Amino acid sequence: MANAIIYLDPDSELNLQAQIRQKLVDAIVLGTFPEGERLPSSRKLADQLGVARNTVVLAYQQLIDEGYLISRERSGLYVNEKVRENHANFTSAAQPVRELTATWRRRFKGLLTTDQAFAFPHNWQQYPYPFLEGQFDHSLYPVREWREASRLALGVREINEWAGETGDLDDPMLIEQIRTKILPRRGIQARPEEILITVGTQQALHLVVELLVDSSVPVAVEEPGYPGMRRLLAQRGAPLVYQPVDEQGMVVDEKLDDCQIICVTPSHQTPTAVTMSMERREALLARARAQDSLIIEDDYEFESNYLTHPHPALRSIDTDDRVIYVSCLSKVLAPGLRLGFMVAAPEIINEARKLRHLMVRHPPLNNQRTAAFFLSLGHYDTFLMHLYQTFEERWIALRRALNYYMLFYVEMAPAQGGSSLWVRGPEDLDVKYVAEQAAKRGILIEPVDHYYATSNAPKNCFRMGITSIPHERIRDGVLQLRELFHDLTKNKTETFENASGEHLTGQRLKDALEGNTMISIIAYGDPCTIEICPDGLLVGKAGYASEDLDQGKWWIENERWHRQWSRWAWGEVGIYDVRLDGDVIKLFDEDGWLIDRYVAQKEETE
Amino acid sequence: MANAIIYLDPDSELNLQAQIRQKLVDAIVLGTFPEGERLPSSRKLADQLGVARNTVVLAYQQLIDEGYLISRERSGLYVNEKVRENHANFTSAAQPVRELTATWRRRFKGLLTTDQAFAFPHNWQQYPYPFLEGQFDHSLYPVREWREASRLALGVREINEWAGETGDLDDPMLIEQIRTKILPRRGIQARPEEILITVGTQQALHLVVELLVDSSVPVAVEEPGYPGMRRLLAQRGAPLVYQPVDEQGMVVDEKLDDCQIICVTPSHQTPTAVTMSMERREALLARARAQDSLIIEDDYEFESNYLTHPHPALRSIDTDDRVIYVSCLSKVLAPGLRLGFMVAAPEIINEARKLRHLMVRHPPLNNQRTAAFFLSLGHYDTFLMHLYQTFEERWIALRRALNYYMLFYVEMAPAQGGSSLWVRGPEDLDVKYVAEQAAKRGILIEPVDHYYATSNAPKNCFRMGITSIPHERIRDGVLQLRELFHDLTKNKTETFENASGEHLTGQRLKDALEGNTMISIIAYGDPCTIEICPDGLLVGKAGYASEDLDQGKWWIENERWHRQWSRWAWGEVGIYDVRLDGDVIKLFDEDGWLIDRYVAQKEETE
Repeated sequence: MANAIIYLDPDSELNLQAQIRQKLVDAIVLGTFPEGERLPSSRKLADQLGVARNTVVLAYQQLIDEGYLISRERSGLYVNEKVRENHANFTSAAQPVRELTATWRRRFKGLLTTDQAFAFPHNWQQYPYPFLEGQFDHSLYPVREWREASRLALGVREINEWAGETGDLDDPMLIEQIRTKILPRRGIQARPEEILITVGTQQALHLVVELLVDSSVPVAVEEPGYPGMRRLLAQRGAPLVYQPVDEQGMVVDEKLDDCQIICVTPSHQTPTAVTMSMERREALLARARAQDSLIIEDDYEFESNYLTHPHPALRSIDTDDRVIYVSCLSKVLAPGLRLGFMVAAPEIINEARKLRHLMVRHPPLNNQRTAAFFLSLGHYDTFLMHLYQTFEERWIALRRALNYYMLFYVEMAPAQGGSSLWVRGPEDLDVKYVAEQAAKRGILIEPVDHYYATSNAPKNCFRMGITSIPHERIRDGVLQLRELFHDLTKNKTETFENASGEHLTGQRLKDALEGNTMISIIAYGDPCTIEICPDGLLVGKAGYASEDLDQGKWWIENERWHRQWSRWAWGEVGIYDVRLDGDVIKLFDEDGWLIDRYVAQKEETE
Repeated sequence: MANAIIYLDPDSELNLQAQIRQKLVDAIVLGTFPEGERLPSSRKLADQLGVARNTVVLAYQQLIDEGYLISRERSGLYVNEKVRENHANFTSAAQPVRELTATWRRRFKGLLTTDQAFAFPHNWQQYPYPFLEGQFDHSLYPVREWREASRLALGVREINEWAGETGDLDDPMLIEQIRTKILPRRGIQARPEEILITVGTQQALHLVVELLVDSSVPVAVEEPGYPGMRRLLAQRGAPLVYQPVDEQGMVVDEKLDDCQIICVTPSHQTPTAVTMSMERREALLARARAQDSLIIEDDYEFESNYLTHPHPALRSIDTDDRVIYVSCLSKVLAPGLRLGFMVAAPEIINEARKLRHLMVRHPPLNNQRTAAFFLSLGHYDTFLMHLYQTFEERWIALRRALNYYMLFYVEMAPAQGGSSLWVRGPEDLDVKYVAEQAAKRGILIEPVDHYYATSNAPKNCFRMGITSIPHERIRDGVLQLRELFHDLTKNKTETFENASGEHLTGQRLKDALEGNTMISIIAYGDPCTIEICPDGLLVGKAGYASEDLDQGKWWIENERWHRQWSRWAWGEVGIYDVRLDGDVIKLFDEDGWLIDRYVAQKEETE
């Protein structure tokens, strides 16, 4: 026996003894270690593997205890033949070629269309600028806290509670935690019998659709909207009414009156991230009440309005149990966990529970108990606070960078938060092409046509998400994206060379700026004014209520305008060539690209 | 502040610091601790709770780090108001009374019938004799090994692999483990694209039914059979053909020819536990091939034929991909985990995967990875070996006890293993009543009418399972059950007092026994002979091939026959009054109950 019967993996997280045991079990069960042959002595195997003899002795002992090996006196260790006996007719012959008859392929019921969901490249983590939404960011995962909760859920007393057959019941501890720690954040008060745990938000939606929708039930969906919901509804043959989305969220009008069910994503509309206004929410509830429709409120994301206070959920202002609220724990924590929940009238929960029992019994109870501990220890709250801060920082950074670098290419849909921005590019932009080109430069952005069911998908819109890109890469990613836009629009973009207007220098430059107020519209739709005070001070005000203020200084050097804000534009010195075109002042950066365009207004006091 | 703001739970598994933190978070989030009020000093709280001051200091510090508390210089600790600000419009007002309008209740689609699944009492663990099947027995759960696998799956490298959005993919490591460690036990070879992980067996069945069945597809099911499958098929409106079950498993005859799908539980038929013979398996496959039907093989239980070798799965002898094999990991390990899988033609797996994606995306990936480690470390094999031994012991014990104590009340269906016995009582038995009465005496047995869809359910059959009752309680449980049967049939049962036949004593007794061979049929249908040798030796042979042999001794004392086997009847001394009725010898125990009935045959040599 010249070769070792097993080899160890130096990168394994298992200790040596566990590895030896694992590999021997493999060899025994798969039959690669011949029956009847004696195992190498512990000394010999230890030598071959380069490990301490005791390590092998302990692994062998464990395998004897467990019945894999038997020790024959004065002869050594052998594979226990009973281990393989229990493997029915294990044949090592190649598998026969089998083929499902063609008839059968035609017999599939309700074959799903090939309308595949949009997917980012599997290796997206290798892209330097992944502007994605909803992907897991491992740097945010609360490893230590989740391990603690998991360890607690594996206590013997706990195992007793979750391991058995519970029929159709959920973990009462998790229900209680959701009821007292999560729902109050959304203004929702619920009794335990109004809550059902689901295998992710998707199962909650599936159950509701199975329960309430068939081909006789017209359903309103948002357009653009969540494709996973549309597909569920299409499977049931429901007639769909596509309701447009404006800056207040889904439009509420008479088209809703035919709909028995209205599906809506009020906190951040999927995919535009627009928050539904309070007036709109009231209007929606009123119309639903008048027509006796039900509302499915998909609150898929954690609460994250960075610019205003959070709005309460629709369900919290619903006085007649008309809203079915659907959300999840795992989307932000770890999508792989698949833990969602729904809150609705007890009658609906009761029926959904029966359906769930028929389909999957219940979501795994060990995960329910782990999540319950995670919540009860306050870790979920802590995690959300951390996430909120992180995403807020990233979201604001993305918004600023787009505003600064891509002002003349893009507009952003009005949003108060969320984890993505809906961006509209120039009219003639072909986003599919741009997204492909961007990917070649390491930038991932999301085309949006899969959010549209009708043929109205704009060709020039895309989404940029912030759940996966580190804060420090955002600015550079946007800069790279601008370079791409520049390259793609080379002959159409205004540069210092080809721009109209007089190149200001000397006193002309000083006069055009000093004492003026410059007015512009920034890329997210808010107005912005900059006062250029004679004493070298800059005062900037952005937003309708001037809620974003900054100060800075300016000076002229080498015939160029220099300015430096304390916060804006990352507090860095900006150096610009200036052209005056009518009453419009144009700023060009050192590469000749147009950076900003202002209407200049002389201060009245002058 | 005379009272403590929180109280500690002496039974909690959390350490004191974690408990203090958890309870304070609760108080803060729920608003029970008034805003603006100062928290008690660490010294004061430590005094109130009776813990070391440092414990409170550390808990406070953690809450400050996490942003729950803020420290105001020279003033103390306060609740950070921002924590509660993030909870939208939390109102403490009582919840409004809401009611789902009556119209809506009528609009539920495909309302599930109230035909509720049979359920054991929730507190079954408090019954001394729970003869149940499929319930979790915590004494068998491999706590240490599962914890180890769980810990490994929570390694940072692992989390990265399972936590994210994987689309519709399963954990490749689990697929590989199932392929190489579980399926070969059943004789099945499968490629990765032939395997799909599901949320328990139930989801596998649901997906197959959704994919292949509608109201135009006749389906054969076993009668009696698994109610969960019938309900799924009924939901799709499938015409059902009820196929009876005999001692070789489901009957294969021309009634199957109309069926496009045949649902079967070959390894142990649900609920009778009969194993389908190899001839029957071949016949089933041949008939399915002739009619181009598909077969759904539900192999819900782990392999456990105690009396014979395991039969290979139908799928392993299926040469044209006609069998969809469904099984699970969690049923025997911990039903609460909900981990099943299916093996089928890649086209079927592919469509089922799309459906699964629409319904739940995928089963939780942390559990998939944990199970993968559990398998790869050999723990699952070890666990099954342990389970096999445990259940074998219990199963044989139950069979023996029924045979010994209840010979005149019951027959058992022929079974080679499994985790329950199908028992037929006297013709006039009303099992519902008996089960109720048994429960009052601490014995749980399972009525069987819920396994029948037709009105043919026998009133006198029941099931006794062994997955939850400790070995040492089985005999006593059966004895208690016999007492119940005695009480219920008081005037109908033969006792020493009322039996016909001559009471043998003295020389008459000796002559009737000595040198005779006594022949009987035991309760599981096998013949049994006992030679009563003149030298005081007993030789017992049971089974058609006399595979169960034992020896013992006999003597007469106080006009009673005494006998003691070395293994049979627990090796205990049995003392019997004897009556001779024609050529039938009847034995009565000391309480006067009939214990055995033999036909006596003089040895020919005599």
